[in-house]
Amino acid sequence: MDLDHLRALDACDPLAGYHDAFALPEGVIYMAGNSLGPPPKTAAARMAQVIGREWGGELVTAWTRSDWIGAPARVGAKIAPLIGAEASEVIVADSTSVDLYKLLVAALAARPERRTVLTVEGDFPTDLYVAAAAAPGIRRVARAELVEALGPDVAVVVLSHAHYRTGEVWDMAAVNAAAKAAGAWTLWDLSHSAGVLELDVSASGADLAVGCGYKYLNGGPGAPAYLHVAERLQRLLRTPIAGWMGHAAPFDFSDDYRPAEGVRGFLAGTPPILSLLALETALDAMAGAAPAALAAKARRLGDLFLQLAAVRCPALERACPGPGAPRGGHVAFRHLDAQGLSQRLAAKGLIGDVRPPDLLRFGLSPLYLRFEDVGRAVDLIAETLGGDGSSRAQLR
Amino acid sequence: MDLDHLRALDACDPLAGYHDAFALPEGVIYMAGNSLGPPPKTAAARMAQVIGREWGGELVTAWTRSDWIGAPARVGAKIAPLIGAEASEVIVADSTSVDLYKLLVAALAARPERRTVLTVEGDFPTDLYVAAAAAPGIRRVARAELVEALGPDVAVVVLSHAHYRTGEVWDMAAVNAAAKAAGAWTLWDLSHSAGVLELDVSASGADLAVGCGYKYLNGGPGAPAYLHVAERLQRLLRTPIAGWMGHAAPFDFSDDYRPAEGVRGFLAGTPPILSLLALETALDAMAGAAPAALAAKARRLGDLFLQLAAVRCPALERACPGPGAPRGGHVAFRHLDAQGLSQRLAAKGLIGDVRPPDLLRFGLSPLYLRFEDVGRAVDLIAETLGGDGSSRAQLR
Repeated sequence: MDLDHLRALDACDPLAGYHDAFALPEGVIYMAGNSLGPPPKTAAARMAQVIGREWGGELVTAWTRSDWIGAPARVGAKIAPLIGAEASEVIVADSTSVDLYKLLVAALAARPERRTVLTVEGDFPTDLYVAAAAAPGIRRVARAELVEALGPDVAVVVLSHAHYRTGEVWDMAAVNAAAKAAGAWTLWDLSHSAGVLELDVSASGADLAVGCGYKYLNGGPGAPAYLHVAERLQRLLRTPIAGWMGHAAPFDFSDDYRPAEGVRGFLAGTPPILSLLALETALDAMAGAAPAALAAKARRLGDLFLQLAAVRCPALERACPGPGAPRGGHVAFRHLDAQGLSQRLAAKGLIGDVRPPDLLRFGLSPLYLRFEDVGRAVDLIAETLGGDGSSRAQLR
Repeated sequence: MDLDHLRALDACDPLAGYHDAFALPEGVIYMAGNSLGPPPKTAAARMAQVIGREWGGELVTAWTRSDWIGAPARVGAKIAPLIGAEASEVIVADSTSVDLYKLLVAALAARPERRTVLTVEGDFPTDLYVAAAAAPGIRRVARAELVEALGPDVAVVVLSHAHYRTGEVWDMAAVNAAAKAAGAWTLWDLSHSAGVLELDVSASGADLAVGCGYKYLNGGPGAPAYLHVAERLQRLLRTPIAGWMGHAAPFDFSDDYRPAEGVRGFLAGTPPILSLLALETALDAMAGAAPAALAAKARRLGDLFLQLAAVRCPALERACPGPGAPRGGHVAFRHLDAQGLSQRLAAKGLIGDVRPPDLLRFGLSPLYLRFEDVGRAVDLIAETLGGDGSSRAQLR
């Protein structure tokens, strides 16, 4: 597969136009967007406008005149189609950890007779930490044992839809159905899925979900997270953090809390507007890119990467589902000197990242990466691994 | 007191140089900084740098190369002297509501035999909401009855140090001492105090504190909040929201939570870096302004406002402590048509704000407001109230 062929693939890529919407340094192939997406080119100008015209020009009145107050719901509505949910089921608030906590505590409080959170070993660390601290009981089982572990004590099943290390993906509808049969609710962490996989949270019967804004959504470092509560659960669940933004009438300044209806009741304090509007700018930059098209291209980029690497870089041991299998937005390999190899690649302009002890990850955003970039990336890896790429000795 | 006299006061104001550090529209006297401070002039350039050079240039490596990862502690250390605390006792995280929740739940869990949160009627709404939802019991008493309400069931006393409506200020040392005598801890909301009053959280014996970054600290809309945990309590308290940023080794990605030592253990998820660095820029813009100098000037601005208004605007009924009395950073008045009057003043360039049903507030930041501005503000109010300012009839 030569460069001309890859360029031909790029030439007929329906998402090719998005490549130029993102600001990347000259000569860099950026494959760490599964950790932090790059800025859309519009971000700097939008922030200048928010600071100069809104914050500096309208001052406190910008909360209404520039509708900052509506931003959590407005930006949530822009995320909703990316996860297959209704706009009224999604809101942007806090961080993924805090949102997970709020939903988990709310779900546990709604059905106190069920006291266990079920998840899997090695799931995303912050989710494990938050769940262990928030739930009376947590059960972590092997992935293959999840369904059989669904006992009558399980209140909520918490899972990362796409695994941050291996890229393994759950069959969301199947897990939702199994959980439902056992009387449990599901809470999905979509951080590694939204923007790169086709999701259907509502139709698949998911109950709750959270996700971050800064990976494949490119919302900026620490961009606010989003949370989803299925319509049918919104009246049953009450946030544990009853901040004023979740009040039915926050500007009445009454002494007593009256929760807002719907998902807005899960807001807590005043949202970080600069970060929130940067996230909105990033979502606007990907407007028009259908989830199905994003997922299809991401899959092709990943399959291509794996196929080329299998031939050119035999020293890399694949650590993610192979070509054709369901997989998250990144590919992963084990290598004895993952850290050193990653640094050598970065020096040549290929940015991936490493998860201890030996995992090398390459995130393949369908928005700004081209088939040509994948070819060049594998070339760089092969060249860096030395000669035919089969020798580990040369890596030191 | 004529304009020349006020200009003479400005000429010898040691903080006069800060006036030009903030971006305010031409012709506007901004007295709503107790709600949202204006942007420092450096904010736009700093955000352009963060987006262009850090996020866009260093991409994911900016977490270490530009020390984003150190920002919560670094910015906390810049806030610490403004509240009279040690740098190791303050960290920036989440919103005020979330921080209050974390500290309150941690304090209640540390001493489960004490189950009541004590506060006062009419305290800041979000604090009341959060406390009522988080505590097994909440007792709201009149301000004058606080100390006698300190029974053996009280775990924590939660109070706004400066009241958001009346500007009344607690004697922090006296309340801390009374609480200590009753075996209770204190949790202060410093949102309306930091940057405008001289605070001595450590020496006064305060146990816990929270505060927002967007009022007198000018950190931008919804700027992240800060939280304070006295050194002596840091080993006793454990956050309920065990997110990865509060882990002792977040980049080990282990399955089990091991809390970071000290106040860093109260971090939860990934912080919103754009909003957090805007807050840092605002703190840098006020660097060198000693809390004592800020407090002295704020007091003089407020006293001047009240003295002039008493003479020129008899239709305004003072609703805050009078000249010479301890008072927060704003002055407040009752007026039958507070909303209409505030809008008329805004049309003339004087921005204050209103709290229902009839309270008019004017925030007096010592950083960007001048004595001349106070004189002009009272002129505008008197003129708007009509003639000698004594007629309410003209107000509709």
